[in-house]
Amino acid sequence: MVGGGQLARMTHEAGIPLGIRFKLLSDTPQDSAAQVVSEVVIGDYRDQDTLRAFARGCDVITFDHEHVPVEHLRALEADGIPVRPGPEALLHAHDKGVMRARLSELGVPCPRHRIVADPEDAAAFAEEVGGFPVILKTVRGGYDGKGVWFVRTPADAVEPFRAGVPVLAEEKVDFTRELAANIVRSPHGQAVAYPVVESRQVDGVCDTVIAPAPGLDEELAGQAQHLALTIAAELGVVGHLAVELFETTDGRILVNELAMRPHNSGHWTQDGSMTSQFANHVRAVLDLPLGDPRPRAPWTVMCNVLGGDYPDMYPAYLHCMARDPQLKIHMYGKDVKPGRKVGHVNTYGDDLADVLERARHAADYLRGTITE
Amino acid sequence: MVGGGQLARMTHEAGIPLGIRFKLLSDTPQDSAAQVVSEVVIGDYRDQDTLRAFARGCDVITFDHEHVPVEHLRALEADGIPVRPGPEALLHAHDKGVMRARLSELGVPCPRHRIVADPEDAAAFAEEVGGFPVILKTVRGGYDGKGVWFVRTPADAVEPFRAGVPVLAEEKVDFTRELAANIVRSPHGQAVAYPVVESRQVDGVCDTVIAPAPGLDEELAGQAQHLALTIAAELGVVGHLAVELFETTDGRILVNELAMRPHNSGHWTQDGSMTSQFANHVRAVLDLPLGDPRPRAPWTVMCNVLGGDYPDMYPAYLHCMARDPQLKIHMYGKDVKPGRKVGHVNTYGDDLADVLERARHAADYLRGTITE
Repeated sequence: MVGGGQLARMTHEAGIPLGIRFKLLSDTPQDSAAQVVSEVVIGDYRDQDTLRAFARGCDVITFDHEHVPVEHLRALEADGIPVRPGPEALLHAHDKGVMRARLSELGVPCPRHRIVADPEDAAAFAEEVGGFPVILKTVRGGYDGKGVWFVRTPADAVEPFRAGVPVLAEEKVDFTRELAANIVRSPHGQAVAYPVVESRQVDGVCDTVIAPAPGLDEELAGQAQHLALTIAAELGVVGHLAVELFETTDGRILVNELAMRPHNSGHWTQDGSMTSQFANHVRAVLDLPLGDPRPRAPWTVMCNVLGGDYPDMYPAYLHCMARDPQLKIHMYGKDVKPGRKVGHVNTYGDDLADVLERARHAADYLRGTITE
Repeated sequence: MVGGGQLARMTHEAGIPLGIRFKLLSDTPQDSAAQVVSEVVIGDYRDQDTLRAFARGCDVITFDHEHVPVEHLRALEADGIPVRPGPEALLHAHDKGVMRARLSELGVPCPRHRIVADPEDAAAFAEEVGGFPVILKTVRGGYDGKGVWFVRTPADAVEPFRAGVPVLAEEKVDFTRELAANIVRSPHGQAVAYPVVESRQVDGVCDTVIAPAPGLDEELAGQAQHLALTIAAELGVVGHLAVELFETTDGRILVNELAMRPHNSGHWTQDGSMTSQFANHVRAVLDLPLGDPRPRAPWTVMCNVLGGDYPDMYPAYLHCMARDPQLKIHMYGKDVKPGRKVGHVNTYGDDLADVLERARHAADYLRGTITE
């Protein structure tokens, strides 16, 4: 696996029971996954020789993130190493312009959008969709709200062009909430769909995920799963695909973003589903039959744990574990910095209000927002 | 953790979400746990200097097996390293003679027993308990049926004395089945009890575990849990304690063996309980509040996967995973040798017959006993 973040850490955890020998390419030995994996190569994935040397002897390569240049992936394939998901699929996760063009071609409902050349063109786009505000995004390099601008005036439209990366303009969608449709697809074409979840963001960062999305119209849920399965099949995705969606005020769903790897909106599956997204991602990239994605409890809630003012979270464990013996804590081994994602918690049960309260309380307590 | 077997492997897996830095003392780099842990020291735990050097800088030491000499554990404690479970508790797991004497003192029901000096004394013991057959055990060094003899005649009683280790004689109990009461206890005295399970042995090796034990009288189940909690408290056990029991034909329970570490009869908890034995063992040795031990499904079954004639089990995965998408496979990364425990499978559900059949089928298929 390329990349030493928490997704690699949790993928390794899920691979242990399958008897997988897991090899990691990590930036530093302190990276989240590098702390827990036996076979770690420290190196820069942006360097093609490093990447090719790392991949030698691997049965298959997969990824913790979407930043590996496509030409490097093609070089691995030329070396005879299966890359999953492959470069042709990952192109769409690398470049939001390519993604939007392809999805539109497939008839997948998206916010209205087009590439804009400069601030004036952005203003023209705003006119086309009924006026400001609009969303501007650099087509590459954004995540967790970075590389995305909420543009209210022509003056706001200057900043996004500074990086020299093409800029995609999208209409500001009137939505009631965000959803995510997560599926896993294997090379031989088997696919499983997890229940569609509600994803609540705070400051552009995923904060809470509720599985399944409360009160979601069954037909809309089925439509969302179908969309995700179609996208995966058409783009040739192998492994986990997260399709982030808007549920609009007029009852439609529109695709917001794609992620071709395990995803924050699927962390609930570790404790809430029969087979976690990480286990199914491993099974998919190894072309093993996929596991049952169904939930094990009526409700599961995930809350991200962000770093707060206290560098040592250990004392907070005592409170959280004693208060809620069913709480599932997942920490990433990261140094605590204010606002940094350092872990998440999962709770499950029959009563959504209770399940939500328990996850919220634990996440806030671990962060230090509340001390009770 | 001292010892690189599958128990350490699965303890590491359970420690990853807790953000634990896990350090391993392993005999070889090929050992089951050494394959998946980042920080591995290769060395011999029987060498006190090796063990002390390994332990330096650890917050706490725990064990994959019960073979570390007690004097070494005392040396670690003298160095200021917490050892959990501690040497005074582990004494009872090291030496069956000490264990039987202590349990009898506590009024814990055990098979009739005494240390016997030689084959003639064993014959005399047989007379005392109503005649042959009786069981002879070396007080140290036995596991999985090794170091245990089923003695039908005075001539059978010669072999057990050959090792020069004291021999314990026990009456042959008339039992309907074997049970196990698993509990976890923390240094501050909190304890949780898992449901009492039925454990089926084949040739002295654990084969199948059913949780909870079908049809077990509720009072007897409570008595078994109470026994295990009492033993843990009286012996000062910290971490997981497995109490293997006989359910006798006349409706009593008698203690067979103790194990002070995660145990094969608790592997079902990985997929069948809210908190696995491994997670709770980690929480106990770190003196963190314990997790909820309750089951997540009406029935959970574990079957051990023994090595068969096929060294590569990977092709069998395809069949097993495709046949049963809810099957949970846990492999240990061990080379396959006929009869060797190389993994286990867990299944869970509402219908015991179905859950049993699925686990049995998968274990047999992985071993190669059936090819369907």
